[in-house]
Amino acid sequence: VKGRISILGPRGTFSEEAARRFDPEASKVFCSSIDEVFDSVEKGKAEHGIVPVENSLEGSVAATLQLLLTTPLRICAEIVIDVKHCLLALPGSRMEDIREVISHPHALAQCRGYIKSLGDVRTRNLPSTAEAAREVSVKRLRGSAAIAPRIAAELYGLTVLAEGVQDEGRNQTRFFALGRECGDGEAEKTSIILGLEDRPGALYKVLGYFARANINLTKIESRPTRKSLGDYIFYIDFEGDAREERVGAVLRKVRARATFFKVLGSYARIG
Amino acid sequence: VKGRISILGPRGTFSEEAARRFDPEASKVFCSSIDEVFDSVEKGKAEHGIVPVENSLEGSVAATLQLLLTTPLRICAEIVIDVKHCLLALPGSRMEDIREVISHPHALAQCRGYIKSLGDVRTRNLPSTAEAAREVSVKRLRGSAAIAPRIAAELYGLTVLAEGVQDEGRNQTRFFALGRECGDGEAEKTSIILGLEDRPGALYKVLGYFARANINLTKIESRPTRKSLGDYIFYIDFEGDAREERVGAVLRKVRARATFFKVLGSYARIG
Repeated sequence: VKGRISILGPRGTFSEEAARRFDPEASKVFCSSIDEVFDSVEKGKAEHGIVPVENSLEGSVAATLQLLLTTPLRICAEIVIDVKHCLLALPGSRMEDIREVISHPHALAQCRGYIKSLGDVRTRNLPSTAEAAREVSVKRLRGSAAIAPRIAAELYGLTVLAEGVQDEGRNQTRFFALGRECGDGEAEKTSIILGLEDRPGALYKVLGYFARANINLTKIESRPTRKSLGDYIFYIDFEGDAREERVGAVLRKVRARATFFKVLGSYARIG
Repeated sequence: VKGRISILGPRGTFSEEAARRFDPEASKVFCSSIDEVFDSVEKGKAEHGIVPVENSLEGSVAATLQLLLTTPLRICAEIVIDVKHCLLALPGSRMEDIREVISHPHALAQCRGYIKSLGDVRTRNLPSTAEAAREVSVKRLRGSAAIAPRIAAELYGLTVLAEGVQDEGRNQTRFFALGRECGDGEAEKTSIILGLEDRPGALYKVLGYFARANINLTKIESRPTRKSLGDYIFYIDFEGDAREERVGAVLRKVRARATFFKVLGSYARIG
């Protein structure tokens, strides 16, 4: 049986590209929300699910971080994709005809400077970059252009008016491949969620365990818990495999100080 | 001359409520993006601007954090608003007629569980909760409901089908009031942005300065810089006023270790 991968649909997004990198052979199950991707893997409708975690311009994806808090799924891999946004329009369109640019709010934000440079142009939010491309195509929106990956131009018969229109040359999105089980290949990184008491030095003490074991943190983010602002949990990523004794010893010390502790997984990086 | 406050428009959002708390007398300048709020205050079209920073369910507002990195504006106050979402529809609508729920993506995410409980209902993103209410009203969308604050129901002549429909009882949004100058009232909190070398213990060392001075951190968030993922800066909030010598001494030590350092302001909290 070939594996199945749940992906945030529709076709033609960077999520699909990430899924292809993780497993080019798998059959794809397209979902309408990040929620649904988690749900479909939890219920066994797919072996793996691909969710966006973080973008180098926009920061964390709140829905994903929130769902990681409660899911029984593990992180099996991280996939980092170079994002190159394109401006797509109906064939025959010219740049000077464009009065409206539509896309996912993150993509619009990443191209803020470029859109401004187009002059008197409105923006409109759509649920995904590919749905923006589809809307231009299906509704025959002359005067509108979608910001979307090149793959969406082929899919919906659009012209690429401009390529690489993001404000910063280098723009990467990090995805997690989630699964009920992960196999036991080599792992380079580990992600944990940690709750700490709200008092001076609580975080400092915990980071000391990592520093003294010479473990490099690659991400730390406090987020308000669902109770009230001010009561925080921490999302921490670091280099190392939780199954190594050196790392496991640190995690046991961390856990002893935590009000909440969850290892999301140790995983390899797919470049 | 009365003060002017720039706010993310349209009328009838939680941003307007935050502005009213900060200065009920000020005249309001409605802007179409967070970008424009910053811009209008930087250019002197208003004395202050209100921007959302963080929500207790959804986490940080990426656009605001990004603009804080480069703006010359200071944080003059933080305003914390209790968010109570309502389901608004055309007068005469019944719950069982609703086939679509529209709102800002954050509001939809905050009401995810409630929307699921409505059964077979689609969601659609709009740029703000108030624009969702306006769309239902102006387009006479029977079968659609907007998730928006109660104030939007009055503004657009809609019926409140349900109140407090967010999944968690307590849902707060934190706003900053920004200004070119802030006056010198008492300040309870300070926000800084910090760049550090990417190596084990770098953050630990810096947090030690705060811990030893008994200064409580209320937020820490690493964010990828605009160069590439993995190269991080930190947004840190803590209790205390940067103009106090005790706090100033800590900040001088922190600055000496930082590759980037910016004090965004010390400010009072408006509850």
